[in-house]
Amino acid sequence: MANITKKVSWSSRADESGATGERTPLLNGSEQTSHSRQPSEGGSVFQIGRLSTVDLEEEITSDEESLRGRPKEIPHTEKLLSLKYESLDYDNIENQLFLEEERRMSYMGFRCLEISRWVVCGLIGFLTGLIACFIDIAVEQLAGFKYQVVKTNIEKFTEVGGLSISLLLWAVLNSAIVMLGAIIVAFFEPIAAGSGIPQIKCYLNGIKIPRVVRLKTLVVKVCGVICSVVGGLAVGKEGPMIHSGAVVAAGVSQGRSTSLKRDFKIFEYFRRDTEKRDFVSAGAAAGVSAAFGAPVGGVLFSLEEGASFWNQMLTWRIFFASMISTFTLNFFLSIYHNKTGDLSSPGLINFGRFQSDSVAYNLYEIPLFIAMGAIGGLLGALFNILNYWLTIFRIRYVHRPCLQVMEAMLVAAVTAAVSFTMIYFSNDCQPLGPEHTEEYPLQLFCADGEYNSMATAFFNTPERSVRSLFHNQPGSYNPLTLSLFTLTYFFLACWTYGLAVSAGVFIPSLLIGAAWGRLFGILLASIPSNGSIWADPGKYALIGAAAQLGGIVRMTLSLTVIMVEATGNVTYGLPIMLVLMTAKIVGDYFVEGLYDIHIKLQSVPFLHWDAPATSHWLTAREVMSSPVTCLNRIEKVGTIVDTLSNTSTNHNGFPVVVQVSGTDEPAKLCGLILRSQLIVLLKHKVFVELARSRLTHRKLQLKDFRDAYPRFPPIQSIHVSQDERECMMDLTEFMNATPYTVPQETSLPRVFKLFRALGLRHLVVADDENRVVGLVTRKDLARYHLGKHGLEELQLAQT
Amino acid sequence: MANITKKVSWSSRADESGATGERTPLLNGSEQTSHSRQPSEGGSVFQIGRLSTVDLEEEITSDEESLRGRPKEIPHTEKLLSLKYESLDYDNIENQLFLEEERRMSYMGFRCLEISRWVVCGLIGFLTGLIACFIDIAVEQLAGFKYQVVKTNIEKFTEVGGLSISLLLWAVLNSAIVMLGAIIVAFFEPIAAGSGIPQIKCYLNGIKIPRVVRLKTLVVKVCGVICSVVGGLAVGKEGPMIHSGAVVAAGVSQGRSTSLKRDFKIFEYFRRDTEKRDFVSAGAAAGVSAAFGAPVGGVLFSLEEGASFWNQMLTWRIFFASMISTFTLNFFLSIYHNKTGDLSSPGLINFGRFQSDSVAYNLYEIPLFIAMGAIGGLLGALFNILNYWLTIFRIRYVHRPCLQVMEAMLVAAVTAAVSFTMIYFSNDCQPLGPEHTEEYPLQLFCADGEYNSMATAFFNTPERSVRSLFHNQPGSYNPLTLSLFTLTYFFLACWTYGLAVSAGVFIPSLLIGAAWGRLFGILLASIPSNGSIWADPGKYALIGAAAQLGGIVRMTLSLTVIMVEATGNVTYGLPIMLVLMTAKIVGDYFVEGLYDIHIKLQSVPFLHWDAPATSHWLTAREVMSSPVTCLNRIEKVGTIVDTLSNTSTNHNGFPVVVQVSGTDEPAKLCGLILRSQLIVLLKHKVFVELARSRLTHRKLQLKDFRDAYPRFPPIQSIHVSQDERECMMDLTEFMNATPYTVPQETSLPRVFKLFRALGLRHLVVADDENRVVGLVTRKDLARYHLGKHGLEELQLAQT
Repeated sequence: MANITKKVSWSSRADESGATGERTPLLNGSEQTSHSRQPSEGGSVFQIGRLSTVDLEEEITSDEESLRGRPKEIPHTEKLLSLKYESLDYDNIENQLFLEEERRMSYMGFRCLEISRWVVCGLIGFLTGLIACFIDIAVEQLAGFKYQVVKTNIEKFTEVGGLSISLLLWAVLNSAIVMLGAIIVAFFEPIAAGSGIPQIKCYLNGIKIPRVVRLKTLVVKVCGVICSVVGGLAVGKEGPMIHSGAVVAAGVSQGRSTSLKRDFKIFEYFRRDTEKRDFVSAGAAAGVSAAFGAPVGGVLFSLEEGASFWNQMLTWRIFFASMISTFTLNFFLSIYHNKTGDLSSPGLINFGRFQSDSVAYNLYEIPLFIAMGAIGGLLGALFNILNYWLTIFRIRYVHRPCLQVMEAMLVAAVTAAVSFTMIYFSNDCQPLGPEHTEEYPLQLFCADGEYNSMATAFFNTPERSVRSLFHNQPGSYNPLTLSLFTLTYFFLACWTYGLAVSAGVFIPSLLIGAAWGRLFGILLASIPSNGSIWADPGKYALIGAAAQLGGIVRMTLSLTVIMVEATGNVTYGLPIMLVLMTAKIVGDYFVEGLYDIHIKLQSVPFLHWDAPATSHWLTAREVMSSPVTCLNRIEKVGTIVDTLSNTSTNHNGFPVVVQVSGTDEPAKLCGLILRSQLIVLLKHKVFVELARSRLTHRKLQLKDFRDAYPRFPPIQSIHVSQDERECMMDLTEFMNATPYTVPQETSLPRVFKLFRALGLRHLVVADDENRVVGLVTRKDLARYHLGKHGLEELQLAQT
Repeated sequence: MANITKKVSWSSRADESGATGERTPLLNGSEQTSHSRQPSEGGSVFQIGRLSTVDLEEEITSDEESLRGRPKEIPHTEKLLSLKYESLDYDNIENQLFLEEERRMSYMGFRCLEISRWVVCGLIGFLTGLIACFIDIAVEQLAGFKYQVVKTNIEKFTEVGGLSISLLLWAVLNSAIVMLGAIIVAFFEPIAAGSGIPQIKCYLNGIKIPRVVRLKTLVVKVCGVICSVVGGLAVGKEGPMIHSGAVVAAGVSQGRSTSLKRDFKIFEYFRRDTEKRDFVSAGAAAGVSAAFGAPVGGVLFSLEEGASFWNQMLTWRIFFASMISTFTLNFFLSIYHNKTGDLSSPGLINFGRFQSDSVAYNLYEIPLFIAMGAIGGLLGALFNILNYWLTIFRIRYVHRPCLQVMEAMLVAAVTAAVSFTMIYFSNDCQPLGPEHTEEYPLQLFCADGEYNSMATAFFNTPERSVRSLFHNQPGSYNPLTLSLFTLTYFFLACWTYGLAVSAGVFIPSLLIGAAWGRLFGILLASIPSNGSIWADPGKYALIGAAAQLGGIVRMTLSLTVIMVEATGNVTYGLPIMLVLMTAKIVGDYFVEGLYDIHIKLQSVPFLHWDAPATSHWLTAREVMSSPVTCLNRIEKVGTIVDTLSNTSTNHNGFPVVVQVSGTDEPAKLCGLILRSQLIVLLKHKVFVELARSRLTHRKLQLKDFRDAYPRFPPIQSIHVSQDERECMMDLTEFMNATPYTVPQETSLPRVFKLFRALGLRHLVVADDENRVVGLVTRKDLARYHLGKHGLEELQLAQT
């Protein structure tokens, strides 16, 4: 089971590199046995689990027992918590070096820093907008070309017969394009698969997902998403924009590219997790903003997913990045469309303009909206459950890259085939008005001057289809077309999400919802009544789209604002809020949101907003990991190397203690030092003896730590001779001298609140003599979650 | 100087009641000397200041010295920090009682609590909406009546001459109405003066402003604001809505009214600062939402001002309250306007519908917008500086209620006189079209079928004037009219803000800005060019309004969203953001925002987002107050009574320590207990001896603390006999056993972050043996601020 999880993991490359690390010759002089992985690995995991096992209260234990006794139809990999993922460190490491630097800095220095933060945010917005623009134009050009070719072909064969050749052409074209997209994703950068939103959620939550913000990921993501959309899959190009924005932000803010081996020597101050997180938030917001033309929605998305502490200036900067991003996109698209200066397409998806008259709703429609919300919640839950099973299936059987590519091609071919069949058998012909909005109207078997209505939905990029459903004249679709379309597209979209291609689920959800929403509107209009208020099914299409999307992703405030901004009209605020609220309540009753399901299936130690409500009877004593490996303030190099090389205790932070000389008392806590810091110290050989002998020896500076950030070398690559092992290292200057501590009796919610609010990575548990008794990390807190049978504890696994 | 500050204080009533407390007969058996205020009071203040005085580094010291040496033209009361204000406690007091209750509660119990939170938020939204509706209708009816009377009078005298009688009528009517509003505010509830936004900012920041969320305040506020607006002052009714919403929230969420002496025995769980704060946030958001029809803006306002920790469900609830509020207002107004179900007036101020065609802006207009932002920043700074001087003047000379009422009447009369003069001498006549929007068109000396354009701006409620400036046809105003109007209204509004009447500054700011913005637009249009893009001055009026408001209040994201929602059109997002950004940057260069100025003049210990940038060289050791009064875990009642009665150390939290028996070592920290808790304990006589003697004695429960919340009796009202003074009290069950602590070396920014992020009230500073060495409270942190000459330290004052 553990093995299964590993294969689908977002960071399978990282595992390999880890393995490479183990194969490198051992240079650090320590004994061979201590750093190669031992079969006792599992044992150590159990040890951690055992030491912090909780005495469950009786009724809960029996509940859990009964749960365990029940046969499980699918492997519950979401009940595991991977030890593989590390935390990011959102708490400043306030060691002496840092404090000295801050104290040296003048007020003007801080002002300059603040200005450069604004510059970086502007750049992030600009570049994200450019990328969105590039994707949009590329998709439009390529898809236009494809549809033109297929359309010509269909028209050729409609009269002479032999439309199966057209079908073949369409299917092969789609498969080929999708294959390209799947190959680069599956073989070169698996982390670029999917929408990237779960990954960014995790990053902002404080989890280090390997390779998620690299340049290569960005390139693969952009090319991949173009291929998927052009390949006709039931996907959108909006979700990936959020990931792209985040990568841009992580790159720009660091002033260098490790992949390209270029260091511009700027923005060095920003080379730490705290600062980088803020920029990545801005990047994600800029991505949302470019995708939906929703700058406020972008800010709210970033905050909803990532913020642990709201800061006015930070939010304002994020908003700035968002605005610049949508503006850039808008501006360049206006040039592309030869309407320079007409800023009317602020996002990749544009819901079109809802005329204020037609969007007006009436009081008695509100129950209808709520009912639609409930339908959206139900359908969303169904979608998520199906996709969950599918994902489990994929984890088990479709984990090799070539299989993944083949599955993607299969889906592409099936999508084309199904679409073609639906169009072929549809007899919903509509007159082609003079001001028709269809880009590629297919006449097929319709009379001259008419077009096939089913083709409007299928033979089009999904964005255009959504817009048609919102705005086409009443009567453009007949109910049968819409029902068939909803049904097929629902299953196609569900099958597609999770493929090894870069693609988002926003647009397919909107499309499904818009289809059944419009159907709902048409059915309402057929009820004999005097009111002409039912006349416009486009309104119901919009509500349906919101309901379906809400039922699938379960976002709240940010989604409301995104929808409102995308419609460009605030009138709909209340109905959209009610619909999303209903969809969330109904959906949550059955299953979690799609992104949360995928996060859970990765066994990521994700921290939610609060500790589980019923966890007050747990205290830090039960939650913490112990015993903890502590280091002395002046420690032997050999001990440090051995500690770092010991894979059975793969902690990344070590409390530093000081022994009262001449006593047997346990040592007192005096600081906290990170694995990465120790590695830099070892690399630079900051040993007490060497410092004494070489008086002119350059003092280690913060810059050395920043240069190594974020890819610190593994301990195995550092050579430490036997002589050097006898040297001493003084950690005083480098450790964080004021780590946060809690007493052992602190309740779990209180520990959780401190940890989450400050974005900590390690929280030291101290007794009333200020001695270290344990260490609380993210995994210790993420382990407890509220299941259907009360508080449950996830198992830790070395996957 | 201290005396001066006292007189303007928001809580002058509280001072009086405090004085009353001192005059009550002493019942607690302690010595007379220890609880009456001593002349040494000032000394004790100095002691606190002295003990935590910082060794400033040399260059900064000299800067400060030179500053002190400089003569000051006005008394710098904003350099003081009042010791009078207490903190709210947003950190849960996790004592044994609390933990037991939480542990007893089932998962269903938590679900029910969550549902009742939603119900409360719905109620808050509903009631806030109703209040807004009441204010709107009352103002419209009364103002309509007043304008009708004056108009008839003017029309009567226009022909026969003797318009001075009309002027007199107008002035007397205004003064009389304003007098009524000023009397109830100045004599009955001074805290209801002004917009209430600074007070709510402070409350959400964690400062207890006495009487700010009481029922009486709400009643006075609502009546007061109706009087001020009807009385024709240059004020708006929007700001007070935010305060009203907050009062409603504080009332509803507690399930009782102390003023009405009714306890509905519901929502008892919410009777603590943490929960109440969340509801007050929702109430403030509902208020904004009702005022501007901006539910998202409301949420952002609450978050921008109050949130220290973003929580998805909380935000969603706040949004729900906002939505319900705007919906309620909309619904009832639609009934009032006989258009039931037409939900088109979501807020008190309605910017009217901007047609999408006329709002389109072009790229080359952006520099113009930025220039307007700069003008707004300059004018805003001027407004704030003038108002600052005026406030200082008022603090000095206009602090008696009858003087305040007279000033308000004077302003009302002058406003009427100035308006009349302007209208009288204006010769800007405009044709009265068939679809004119003016409610009370004044013909005066214009030809038949024309009306006086100046009267549209002056002879109208400010909301209508704003709307006219936004939407009237190009050419409705001539430039001279607008310049004169801007000039006079600017000074009138500046004079009005700070009067002892309930009134907001939003609408006057918008009006000033709209006037000069429209003027700007007209001037642009007069530049000969081929573009018809300049044609619509309404667009520039909107931008000017945003610039002026931004220049005065300096809000950021929330104001942008409020403006966008009030216009009902997202197209304007980017220009409004740019304008607000420019206005803030320009304005901040000169002076702070209006609300911040008033908060500073009250010497409130307001905590900003971050510690001052250059404060890394300060540590907890220098910042903290010490020595700290500690209590033993089992403490003599007499000691506790004496500690609480000792006014020279008016701390509200006491670290609880435990002595290792038989040693001389200083005691170890084991908890923290609040003054309010001790008072409840004393009141219920929870003494160890009594518990032993009466075995059936009811154990003290959390309910007893909740019943006493939030108005705990003063220590003087509790009778403790000499015998009882010898009893012992066991604090173990009641103290917070796991208070947050920091080591002495922690830097100020780190202390600040912990304190702010978790909403603490007391933070214990412990040494490495876990002994108490100091206590950091809000005042210790708020004392340091970044002035023009580096870090400055405010003085503490017993005002």
